[in-house]
Amino acid sequence: MFDILPIKGGIDNVKGFFSGGVSVGLKPSGKNDVAFIRSDEPCDVSAIFTQNKFQAAPIRHFKRYGETFATNFILINSKNANAMTGKEGIDDIDTLFASLPQSLKALNPIMSSTGVIGYRLNIPKIAKAFELFSFNTKNSNAAAEAIMTTDRFKKEICLKVDVEGKGSFHIAAICKGAGMINPSLATMLCFITTDANVPKELMNDLLNEAAKDSFNAISVDGDTSTNDTVMLISSAKSGVWDKEAFSEALKFITKHLALEIVKDGEGSKKVVAFEVKNALSLDEAEKAAKALSNSLLVKTAIFGEDPNWGRIASTVGASGITCDEEKLIIKYDDVVVYIGTKKEMSKETEAAAAKVMKKDSFKISCDLALGDKSFTAYGCDLGHEYVNINADYRS
Amino acid sequence: MFDILPIKGGIDNVKGFFSGGVSVGLKPSGKNDVAFIRSDEPCDVSAIFTQNKFQAAPIRHFKRYGETFATNFILINSKNANAMTGKEGIDDIDTLFASLPQSLKALNPIMSSTGVIGYRLNIPKIAKAFELFSFNTKNSNAAAEAIMTTDRFKKEICLKVDVEGKGSFHIAAICKGAGMINPSLATMLCFITTDANVPKELMNDLLNEAAKDSFNAISVDGDTSTNDTVMLISSAKSGVWDKEAFSEALKFITKHLALEIVKDGEGSKKVVAFEVKNALSLDEAEKAAKALSNSLLVKTAIFGEDPNWGRIASTVGASGITCDEEKLIIKYDDVVVYIGTKKEMSKETEAAAAKVMKKDSFKISCDLALGDKSFTAYGCDLGHEYVNINADYRS
Repeated sequence: MFDILPIKGGIDNVKGFFSGGVSVGLKPSGKNDVAFIRSDEPCDVSAIFTQNKFQAAPIRHFKRYGETFATNFILINSKNANAMTGKEGIDDIDTLFASLPQSLKALNPIMSSTGVIGYRLNIPKIAKAFELFSFNTKNSNAAAEAIMTTDRFKKEICLKVDVEGKGSFHIAAICKGAGMINPSLATMLCFITTDANVPKELMNDLLNEAAKDSFNAISVDGDTSTNDTVMLISSAKSGVWDKEAFSEALKFITKHLALEIVKDGEGSKKVVAFEVKNALSLDEAEKAAKALSNSLLVKTAIFGEDPNWGRIASTVGASGITCDEEKLIIKYDDVVVYIGTKKEMSKETEAAAAKVMKKDSFKISCDLALGDKSFTAYGCDLGHEYVNINADYRS
Repeated sequence: MFDILPIKGGIDNVKGFFSGGVSVGLKPSGKNDVAFIRSDEPCDVSAIFTQNKFQAAPIRHFKRYGETFATNFILINSKNANAMTGKEGIDDIDTLFASLPQSLKALNPIMSSTGVIGYRLNIPKIAKAFELFSFNTKNSNAAAEAIMTTDRFKKEICLKVDVEGKGSFHIAAICKGAGMINPSLATMLCFITTDANVPKELMNDLLNEAAKDSFNAISVDGDTSTNDTVMLISSAKSGVWDKEAFSEALKFITKHLALEIVKDGEGSKKVVAFEVKNALSLDEAEKAAKALSNSLLVKTAIFGEDPNWGRIASTVGASGITCDEEKLIIKYDDVVVYIGTKKEMSKETEAAAAKVMKKDSFKISCDLALGDKSFTAYGCDLGHEYVNINADYRS
């Protein structure tokens, strides 16, 4: 038996971790742009990276470490992705870390970056952060601000997990990413810290399992940015371990943050769950659900609050999965707009579906009635704000 | 030796064909909404249809005819796709054709539809067109208007082909479709008529070959609407046949119309050719080129005239093809913005690339420097007009 309790703050509350963020002038706004996460003792770490063939320098820098490496220092910057910068981009990270204060005893330091592609890091500017950081502070909020790019709000969460007869542990995260993850290639970064005594050999599996229905449900594999990163870092300081409790808490965190990213969709106003159920295979359910969450015509219809279910049907049909128009049932929340080819949508049904679409969040469900596999993808509307934000992201 | 000469008009000028369009009140604007194409004698016909699993009723109606059927009558309506209408949707077409004037001696009549999904055809309304049509007119222009939906301009073309020592034939087409074909699922319809004496057994191959670098370069297979149709109809009335001349003229027509569709991209202002060259395989070149033409971030950057080549690189990397950032060269027309990881884009280069992007039409080229296969996909920008048009397409 265990209880999961959301508590205030972010990664501040996890034993063994310190964090903070400062401004070194990368963001013209003067907001925080460089963050650190550190621990006194080396931590086990597990990471999921982008499938993009052009992985950014910080990812390739990470991969140079051996399988079982531990770390006690993570540096994160915004405004510059350090991507498409070749071997020099990796060397720049080493150069930067060479100027870390000796007193920190940084072991296998990790860097993570987000921002514009194709520019070398400004090393002197970023190194200035090492003078500005209060390394013994617990300021998750400042770190969460520093990693934001087009995000409209900060993303952080902390959970306290009480396990009967064993004690309690914490798990927390900061995250950046603003909807449209796919197909827009907007970068998402997520750093999850925990003081649970998680066995190293389970970390990868648990993290991948949690990402499957969360970050992976808002992002199609392979169609991701050069920098996408989800990292789990464990201090083990609580000494408590319960696989079931930890797995559930980790899934809670990743799902929560994935939905926060969708909610913060660039210029979007609505979060929509696209459920494809009773498909022949999980693969087909996922394919169709993600096709829906990525369709421009579906996104703009949601923006226009137009219950044009023909676009839903057409997208499912175009996704290449097995489907039958005589069996398909389409619903907007509880409103059935299409059931086989039995009848046209009545004016009353259309009005009811239009009402559902006025909500900030709702579900569009396609029942294929062919098998028993289901998948839900999450998406948002696409409106004028998206165009404004992305027509000149670099400015 | 042969000469291809564009001449005025559309399918009017092809021997043996009559066409026209009228308004029966499907379009609230009162513009033409039903068209016909007919010939006195039965014609051979070849067609390419959407890969969508939910093929519209007119396509399934067509497919009921045998392999070698000939036709002398095609009816086309806009505003209603007759898709997701089940067996009843097919029966409706038969009911409609039952009221065709006996005097027409319609043989294996074909229907084609475009518009909103999920509604039965209004048979009495459409049948009214049979009273309004002047069946002996040659009014391609009126037909081209009748098949338009969100198109901003009519699309028709006619070519006269002079073949040395053999004589001349004509090939012409009307077409509808407004950019964003993929991933927007906007329907495209294209009807190509010819009086060339094209052998029936070559028609499919020639049409598919021509579509490959034209309609297929603006539309990813499988991600198409319920109604997409390209049809080639031959009256053979010129008696002239020259495979090479016909093939070239057919490619000219399909390429011209494909680019017209991109140019008419919903709310778009620019036509961009995305060339991926020196890939390991044609498949990979095509995959990356189409990923570029479909990327939201690329489309919005083009709208914003922002030479943010990082989005180009990231999209190529995310497309899953083999690529190497040390070898890649990216150009905007003749301006090299990225060459390996050798240097950052200078202010001068950025200014030159920005200048290219101000043009109505330009080329973004990615040289992978890995093999010798190339593919060019065509796309357009995505701006506010697209959102306006698609937020409420049905109104």
